[in-house]
Amino acid sequence: MTHVVAVDVGGTSVKAALVARDLSPVRTLREPTQRVDGSVDVAHIADLIGRLAADTAVVGVGVAVPGIVDDTTGHVHTAVNLGWLDLPLQSRLGAMTGLPLLVQHDVRTGGLAEFTVGAATGVPDAVFVPIGTGIAAAFQVDGRPLVAGGFAGEIGHLVVDPGGVPCNCGQVGCLETLAAAPAVARRYTERTGSPATAADVAALLSKGDPDATAVWDDAVRALGAALAIATTLTGPEVIVLGGGLAEAGDALTDPVRDDLHARLTFQRKPRVVRAALGQDAGRAGAALLGWRAADAS
Amino acid sequence: MTHVVAVDVGGTSVKAALVARDLSPVRTLREPTQRVDGSVDVAHIADLIGRLAADTAVVGVGVAVPGIVDDTTGHVHTAVNLGWLDLPLQSRLGAMTGLPLLVQHDVRTGGLAEFTVGAATGVPDAVFVPIGTGIAAAFQVDGRPLVAGGFAGEIGHLVVDPGGVPCNCGQVGCLETLAAAPAVARRYTERTGSPATAADVAALLSKGDPDATAVWDDAVRALGAALAIATTLTGPEVIVLGGGLAEAGDALTDPVRDDLHARLTFQRKPRVVRAALGQDAGRAGAALLGWRAADAS
Repeated sequence: MTHVVAVDVGGTSVKAALVARDLSPVRTLREPTQRVDGSVDVAHIADLIGRLAADTAVVGVGVAVPGIVDDTTGHVHTAVNLGWLDLPLQSRLGAMTGLPLLVQHDVRTGGLAEFTVGAATGVPDAVFVPIGTGIAAAFQVDGRPLVAGGFAGEIGHLVVDPGGVPCNCGQVGCLETLAAAPAVARRYTERTGSPATAADVAALLSKGDPDATAVWDDAVRALGAALAIATTLTGPEVIVLGGGLAEAGDALTDPVRDDLHARLTFQRKPRVVRAALGQDAGRAGAALLGWRAADAS
Repeated sequence: MTHVVAVDVGGTSVKAALVARDLSPVRTLREPTQRVDGSVDVAHIADLIGRLAADTAVVGVGVAVPGIVDDTTGHVHTAVNLGWLDLPLQSRLGAMTGLPLLVQHDVRTGGLAEFTVGAATGVPDAVFVPIGTGIAAAFQVDGRPLVAGGFAGEIGHLVVDPGGVPCNCGQVGCLETLAAAPAVARRYTERTGSPATAADVAALLSKGDPDATAVWDDAVRALGAALAIATTLTGPEVIVLGGGLAEAGDALTDPVRDDLHARLTFQRKPRVVRAALGQDAGRAGAALLGWRAADAS
């Protein structure tokens, strides 16, 4: 029986799993990210893959990476959190492991999973938007992902509040400044003086907490505005919300859908649903990528 | 020697041309659009194609149509100006003419020409934005057009001025309300009381006319904002401005590029260029489509 290795490279840890054809994990490893002069050590990732591949027939590897990543070549333009700049990761890791290996952007990898075996399975025009520390989108149009050399999908940096607060990216009033998990937490704390996480804020909604409600409504409106833009340009039938904020379930998807639909007139009105795979989307997508590498080799 | 027929269906006239492989027109026809009960008569279009095909070997037909058109099937969802609703135009015209025939949205047809033989030849990630009575965009990402059942590319209906004037589409402050040719003309007339066309306003710029300059600057800023959004989501390397407003040349492309680049931070900064094919983009694109139909048959 053959397997693939699915790898998710993060700033603090590297997660890797040995995965079967049905995408079930057979064995998982999670290790702290190792760095050399501030840059994440590629040799450590290769070693991790090698250990998972030691006792079984591994036929392919899929690697998910944050940053600006050209999925068509597996080239990492920039990955600030990993200290990588202009790194030909796919060719380098492929050579180190000797295995068929594909590298892709982590959000598009999650999207691949949601579009293939998740909440938008079989939908040719769909968007996957994980909302966590940051916000980005994986677009699928006409059944194909949008890559544009790694520059497509930066929905978190649409300016939805021009008079708002500066964003880390240099613009002012980006979607992330209102709707990313740290922004929801920070804005609640600014109003109340009480420390809270985004999950705390979500939990306070059902109790009718007015500050939590105000902060959540701002996030919902910002998401509605950004998704209206995405809908006008790319015409999705389904929008899949994922990441930590989507753990709130209907408390997020229902008001976002209502706000979005109220903005649209002639456009096709997309369904807004919660991600089906949750925290497993990254691993499932990397595994699908590993099987793609195997099938292409 | 074989030819194709290129057809551009408009609300007031139908333009058709017999076109050689090098895209040069051999013979052109332009006739008033004929209607039956308010709907443009498909039989008249078939007749026009038949007349052009009568004395030569025609191997394919390309037809460009405004509205919401699914290029993948040639199905017209809605074409308000033509009085068409849910019309399977490609299969119907194909059957009437007995020729290999493809139907596509007129803006994406113009984009096909600019991306194949025009201002963005060979650029995989590019946008074509004709600015005339309305504004729409043809997106090419990873070398492929975005269609989304005909719903992709409605850049003219991005809301760039939420406190502005109502748009025909039902939203408020769309790009079209500030930057489409009729909007530029109307806004100049509102300021001055003098009737003027958008071309008149463009001509007044070089004379330093303050009202023309103010109206033009508003259009430029609106285009900059909309193109920044398009850049953040789809990552183009080149943006091609076409249509009547782009006849102003550098007076449009230079300030739009400056405004766009000033808005971008981490994004790839696209070149902004004038369309190369001008009024011929529609015919050239329809001819390319005709050759595609011929090659596929």
